[in-house]
Amino acid sequence: MAVPAGEVILTGDRPTGPLHLGHYAGSLRSRLALQAANSMTLLVADLQALTDNAGRQLDVPQNVLEVVADYLAIGIDPSRTVIALQSAIPELAELTIHYLNLVTVARLERNPTVREEIELRGFRRDIPAGFLAYPVSQAADITAFRATLVPVGSDQLPMIEQANEIARRLAHIAGAPVLPECRALLSGTPRLPGVDGRKASKSLGNAIALGARPEEIRRAVQAMYTDPDHLRVSDPGKVEGNVVFAYLDAFDPDRQEVGELKARYRRGGLGDSALKHRLDGVLQALIEPIRGRREEAIADPAGLMEIIRDGTERSREVAAGVLADVRAVFRLPTLKRNPERRG
Amino acid sequence: MAVPAGEVILTGDRPTGPLHLGHYAGSLRSRLALQAANSMTLLVADLQALTDNAGRQLDVPQNVLEVVADYLAIGIDPSRTVIALQSAIPELAELTIHYLNLVTVARLERNPTVREEIELRGFRRDIPAGFLAYPVSQAADITAFRATLVPVGSDQLPMIEQANEIARRLAHIAGAPVLPECRALLSGTPRLPGVDGRKASKSLGNAIALGARPEEIRRAVQAMYTDPDHLRVSDPGKVEGNVVFAYLDAFDPDRQEVGELKARYRRGGLGDSALKHRLDGVLQALIEPIRGRREEAIADPAGLMEIIRDGTERSREVAAGVLADVRAVFRLPTLKRNPERRG
Repeated sequence: MAVPAGEVILTGDRPTGPLHLGHYAGSLRSRLALQAANSMTLLVADLQALTDNAGRQLDVPQNVLEVVADYLAIGIDPSRTVIALQSAIPELAELTIHYLNLVTVARLERNPTVREEIELRGFRRDIPAGFLAYPVSQAADITAFRATLVPVGSDQLPMIEQANEIARRLAHIAGAPVLPECRALLSGTPRLPGVDGRKASKSLGNAIALGARPEEIRRAVQAMYTDPDHLRVSDPGKVEGNVVFAYLDAFDPDRQEVGELKARYRRGGLGDSALKHRLDGVLQALIEPIRGRREEAIADPAGLMEIIRDGTERSREVAAGVLADVRAVFRLPTLKRNPERRG
Repeated sequence: MAVPAGEVILTGDRPTGPLHLGHYAGSLRSRLALQAANSMTLLVADLQALTDNAGRQLDVPQNVLEVVADYLAIGIDPSRTVIALQSAIPELAELTIHYLNLVTVARLERNPTVREEIELRGFRRDIPAGFLAYPVSQAADITAFRATLVPVGSDQLPMIEQANEIARRLAHIAGAPVLPECRALLSGTPRLPGVDGRKASKSLGNAIALGARPEEIRRAVQAMYTDPDHLRVSDPGKVEGNVVFAYLDAFDPDRQEVGELKARYRRGGLGDSALKHRLDGVLQALIEPIRGRREEAIADPAGLMEIIRDGTERSREVAAGVLADVRAVFRLPTLKRNPERRG
C-alpha cells in the first residue's frame, strides 16, 4: 500500500507503562513512515487509560513520560508530529458531552468493540458508564483534530464508523457538514504474540520493552515458545504459532533468508538455538539505538513535559475551533472573558 | 421550616423560555429567602436543556437572557447570588467525564427520575446516551460548587442520592473525603397547575408568565378551570382540583380569608366570578412590579450578559479548584501553560 500523504492523522496510546515490540510492529513503526508527509497527532490517552481501569489509580505522570520517551526513541520528531495529552484538552470532554446527545444507549450497546471489551474485562451488567461512552469519547478525539485518517486494527473499525455517524448526525442537524468524516488506515501487520505465545501484555510480563537491556532481550528470546514437538534438530518443526518466526517475520530485514529458514525448519535440520541466535542478533540491532535515545529522553523529564505541553497547546487551538463550530450548531452563547477580572 | 443559613446552595433552571408563576411558587420565591444568609449559585442549565431536546436546536442565547431577566425581576441580587451559564464552564464537562467512570450503566438505568423521564418522553430503547448520563452531569454541577444544600422537588431526590454516591466513591478511592456530600432542601409547595388544570407548561400555553401583561393575566384567570358541576352561585362547589383556589393558596397573602372563601364555596353561595375577581387582583398586584423590573432588565441585554459572564467567571474559579482535587485523586499530570506561547 502506498504511504498516505497530505492527510490529518490521529493516533496514540494509553499510557499504562513503557511500550513494547508489539506496539512497535503494530503501529509505532508505521508512524515513522507517516510523519514525513502528513499532519499527525499522537494523543497520549490518559483519560482512556483511566476508563479502562475504572475507579483505580494509575501512576499517570510517570506513564506519560514513558510513552513520550518511547515516541522520541523510535524517531518521532516533535517538530513535525504533535504529541498531546488527552486529559489536558478540556475541549475533548466538552465535545464528548455534546456528542452523547447524538447517540442512543442501544447504539452504544451494539458496538462490537465495546461488547468484546465488556466480555474481556468481565464487566457484564456492571459496565462503568464511562466505558459504554468510550466510542463517543473516541469520536471526540478524532473530530477535535479534524482527522481524515485514523490508523486502527480491524477490531477498531466500529469506532471509526461511530465517529462518522456522529459527524453525519451533526451535519443533518446543522444542514451542512461541520466535521470531516475519517477513513481507517488498516494495519497490515498481524498482532505480534508475547514471548510465551499468548497475547503480549505488560501485566503478563511476556513482552519485550523498547528500552530492554541486551540481557533482557537475550533472556526473552531464549524463553520464546517454539514448537513443543520439535525435540531434535533433525525433526520437522512447525512455523505457525512459533513465536521466534513471528518475531523474525516482524523484524528481520532479510525477508528472503527468513523464507528459506522457514522451509528448512519445516523439513527438519534447523535447531531452535540457531534460530534464536539469529533473532537475538536482529533484536539487539533493532533495539540498541532505540534504547540509547530512550535513555537520553527519560533522563530529561522537564524536556519531555515541555514537548507534551507544547503539543497540547497546539492541539487545544485546533480543538477549540472545532468546539466553537459544534457549539454554533447548538446555538450556544459565547461569553467573552471580562479582561478586567483577570488583571 | 426555618430558613437555612450558611449553606452553599446550588439550584437553577433550564433556559427553554420565560419562567412562569409555577416556577415562582415552586422555587423562585423561596430563593429570595435563601439569598440573604447563604452562598447561592443559580445555574442556567443550557446543556441540560439541549439534552432534554437531544438533537434539536434551541434559541439558547435568547432563552438565557429571558431567564436572567426573570431572576432580576423577582429580586435576585447578582451581587449576592451568582448567576452562571452551564455551557460556559468546561470544568463541568470534565468532572462529568471523570464521574462516568464511577457509576455503572445498570445504576443509571435504575435511577427512578431517569426512568420516569424516559417514560414521559417516550424514549424507551432510543434513550440518548446524554440522557442516561444526566444524573452524572447533575452530580458534576452539584459538586463543582461544593454545594451542601440543593433545593429539589421530591421527584428529584434520586439525583441527590446519585451525587452523594459519587462523592463517597471518590472518597473511597482517595482514602479521604474529596467533595462535601449535600442534602436536599425539599420544596413544601405542591406543584401549581396550569390554567386548564393540567401540568403547567410553556408548550401547552397554560401558564402565566412572570412578565404577563394585565390583560393576559385577566384572560388567563377568566379561563381557569374551576368545578364543572358548580353551575349556579348557590350550588356547593369543589375546592380540590379547582385551579382558582390552587392559585389563591399559592399567592393570596390573606391566608385566613382564603380559608373562609373555601368554606363558603363548599357550602354554596360563592360564585366563580367573585373568586376570579379576587384572584385577578392578587395576581395583578404580584406581577406588576415583577413585570416592571423584567422590562427594564430585558431592555439591557448587554447588562444581562455582563451579569452572567461575571457569575460564570466566579463559578469557574470554584469549579477549577474542585476539578484539580478530582484530577489529583486520579493522579493526572498538570501541564503548566507556557507563558511564551500566549504573549
